[in-house]
Amino acid sequence: MAEHDDPLGIRSDTSRAGAFADGVFAIVITLLVLDLRPPHVPPGQLLRGLLAQWPSYLAYVTSYLYVAVVWLNHKASLSRIRLMDPFLHWANLGILFTTALLPFPTAVISEVMEAENSQDVRVAVALYALVGVMLCASWVVFFQYLKWHPEFVKEGVGSRFFKGETKRAWAGVALYAAAGVLGYLVAPWIGLVIFLVVPVFYGMTSHGWNTWGRHRRWG
Amino acid sequence: MAEHDDPLGIRSDTSRAGAFADGVFAIVITLLVLDLRPPHVPPGQLLRGLLAQWPSYLAYVTSYLYVAVVWLNHKASLSRIRLMDPFLHWANLGILFTTALLPFPTAVISEVMEAENSQDVRVAVALYALVGVMLCASWVVFFQYLKWHPEFVKEGVGSRFFKGETKRAWAGVALYAAAGVLGYLVAPWIGLVIFLVVPVFYGMTSHGWNTWGRHRRWG
Amino acid sequence: MAEHDDPLGIRSDTSRAGAFADGVFAIVITLLVLDLRPPHVPPGQLLRGLLAQWPSYLAYVTSYLYVAVVWLNHKASLSRIRLMDPFLHWANLGILFTTALLPFPTAVISEVMEAENSQDVRVAVALYALVGVMLCASWVVFFQYLKWHPEFVKEGVGSRFFKGETKRAWAGVALYAAAGVLGYLVAPWIGLVIFLVVPVFYGMTSHGWNTWGRHRRWG
Amino acid sequence: MAEHDDPLGIRSDTSRAGAFADGVFAIVITLLVLDLRPPHVPPGQLLRGLLAQWPSYLAYVTSYLYVAVVWLNHKASLSRIRLMDPFLHWANLGILFTTALLPFPTAVISEVMEAENSQDVRVAVALYALVGVMLCASWVVFFQYLKWHPEFVKEGVGSRFFKGETKRAWAGVALYAAAGVLGYLVAPWIGLVIFLVVPVFYGMTSHGWNTWGRHRRWG
Repeated sequence: MAEHDDPLGIRSDTSRAGAFADGVFAIVITLLVLDLRPPHVPPGQLLRGLLAQWPSYLAYVTSYLYVAVVWLNHKASLSRIRLMDPFLHWANLGILFTTALLPFPTAVISEVMEAENSQDVRVAVALYALVGVMLCASWVVFFQYLKWHPEFVKEGVGSRFFKGETKRAWAGVALYAAAGVLGYLVAPWIGLVIFLVVPVFYGMTSHGWNTWGRHRRWG
Repeated sequence: MAEHDDPLGIRSDTSRAGAFADGVFAIVITLLVLDLRPPHVPPGQLLRGLLAQWPSYLAYVTSYLYVAVVWLNHKASLSRIRLMDPFLHWANLGILFTTALLPFPTAVISEVMEAENSQDVRVAVALYALVGVMLCASWVVFFQYLKWHPEFVKEGVGSRFFKGETKRAWAGVALYAAAGVLGYLVAPWIGLVIFLVVPVFYGMTSHGWNTWGRHRRWG
Repeated sequence: MAEHDDPLGIRSDTSRAGAFADGVFAIVITLLVLDLRPPHVPPGQLLRGLLAQWPSYLAYVTSYLYVAVVWLNHKASLSRIRLMDPFLHWANLGILFTTALLPFPTAVISEVMEAENSQDVRVAVALYALVGVMLCASWVVFFQYLKWHPEFVKEGVGSRFFKGETKRAWAGVALYAAAGVLGYLVAPWIGLVIFLVVPVFYGMTSHGWNTWGRHRRWG
Repeated sequence: MAEHDDPLGIRSDTSRAGAFADGVFAIVITLLVLDLRPPHVPPGQLLRGLLAQWPSYLAYVTSYLYVAVVWLNHKASLSRIRLMDPFLHWANLGILFTTALLPFPTAVISEVMEAENSQDVRVAVALYALVGVMLCASWVVFFQYLKWHPEFVKEGVGSRFFKGETKRAWAGVALYAAAGVLGYLVAPWIGLVIFLVVPVFYGMTSHGWNTWGRHRRWG
């Protein structure tokens, strides 16, 4: 694009989109800890109370990992984007929307795990899976748009990059959908294991599906 | 302005104003999710409890959309501003003040929607409308000042831009006032529909009233 | 300072100090709204409940104004600083510490104002005044150090600037101390009026004691 | 590293890592104040209620100091890093994870201090020590990796720097482990004193173990 088409840099402002996203991710990751509260137990029972809260700790670790991975992905993507049009800004805001939702199903799942009603656990697993599907779907929209509009991508980024990212995002949609269906219909622990595995999978491939091989070489 | 008039860059510091605004918007957008809590229901009733909270979800989506639009507007405006004097900083702080208020009427409206007392719903709608009027009025002040002081605007920005923005802000004042009056005197749902429609209207015109035609061409 | 004395820019890093401060101020200003909650009233009494919360609104406005002024002062000061040594960083962290405290006395004061026990109101006013004194005292330390160490100040900043700022900070210490003593011993409303007046005073002089005259000319 | 090896700057992005960390630290430092609440006391007892909360104030000061020191360390380290690979990003996210945990043991410790059950106090001290050990251990990983990979460090940074930092981090692991063991088995106050002393120790050496002498010269 020639400079005179956009003298005010309206379309190229990835820096403020990055700063805003950093703010949202930083707050989400920190709000998660607000659900870790001193347990309400009789005097002398603090240790037992703290140990009984283990589902909260697991939920905290899982969601922290997830947001950390979202941040790494976001950084890796934005560093390859040359400019953003309104649609891309809205796709970005969609990612922030679904990420900001995460503390809600996290709180629900850690609460019902302590109460141990099996029907409620299934519902909570399905809710977490639903938010997971929405989050991955918002990435699909973002990456798909960039795949279709190479004019927004920096020179030197191979077309394979956003193709690979789109595949990764679809994999997430499928995995969370499976976690929700299996966790609700078969056994909640299947869903919970998938919730913990997905961020690890994304984390290991967070600099792009195709750069996984290169990544090992960096050490 | 010649460089020697402002050797310390006091008047030109839009970058820190942008960073501060990003912080406030990021926190407001994330605080909204704090009102989505695990429902207090008897064991086995989680699904019913989650579904009964639908007004909270709608309130969350509406307010999220609103803050997202405020962020886009803020970014689009600041990228056209060359320097800020104290008045403009205070006008900016006024926008942040009214935006930061938003979680309060959002929490009120989602609470009374679940309780379903019709008088309280009317009051809550009027309160949300009042904050909406204040928010749009703070934009009127900001844009009007820029319309009157073109020396603060970057070269190359046509005078039509901030004229169009001032009109959009006045439209918001009128719409929220109408939502409050009609929602209070006639029927709350009229107000609620307007609350959802206004951010969509602003979102579609967020790169300026006059660039709406161009925007479509960008796809 | 010659470049080879500090090849890593350790001492010149005002940018991250500014970003960190922006984050803290943005969060403090937004946390204040968390104390505005839907009132707990019987069905149909929402309007009365909202109106009865007026001390919370006043406390919110006062503290918002205060943090806004702190942000403006901080920006104006940092833009004049060339580099920061560890002491200056700790002085800056002291300002952030006392500012981050502000939501606590704000919550106390708005709670006791609704309960209307006169002894508690006096204590709450004294507590708010104490935090105000601490906040202004942390500015005294910051400005005094810069007055004594002109080597940290950018060229072109007259020595009068930080002298004037030190005076303004001492004025704040004196005003809050007076507010606390008079509010506790004589009548709480004296303290409350001072709490509202001080940020307005600082706001009007926020680009430096000596530039107040110039400020008017900018319009 | 030649430019063509990393045309997109994927590995060199310390700026967004710094901005994200600033956001997390700013939120953690501000969330700590949320545990300072107006005391629930009968009318007229506010002063007594405020004074009875002294353990909360001490916990607030201690944790604030700690996060402030983490921020200073983080800034000092990042300003010496030339580029970050995925492992270093994850090590950084580990530091943010353990820092974001801090409000949890802080809330636990200030709650049990007020209740004064001696067994619970021991457990709370051990919990705080555990998080302290985890936090220092995450720094060990970060510094150790930089010690082993000088190619990520800026030119001009002597190899002694990250060696000294690794030592400081190990010292923290040892001190918190001692605080936990002594505080649990012997007397809680030993742990509490160590908790307050460690941040002071780190603060005084926050620009590197070896620059402590130089630091004094800066005044």
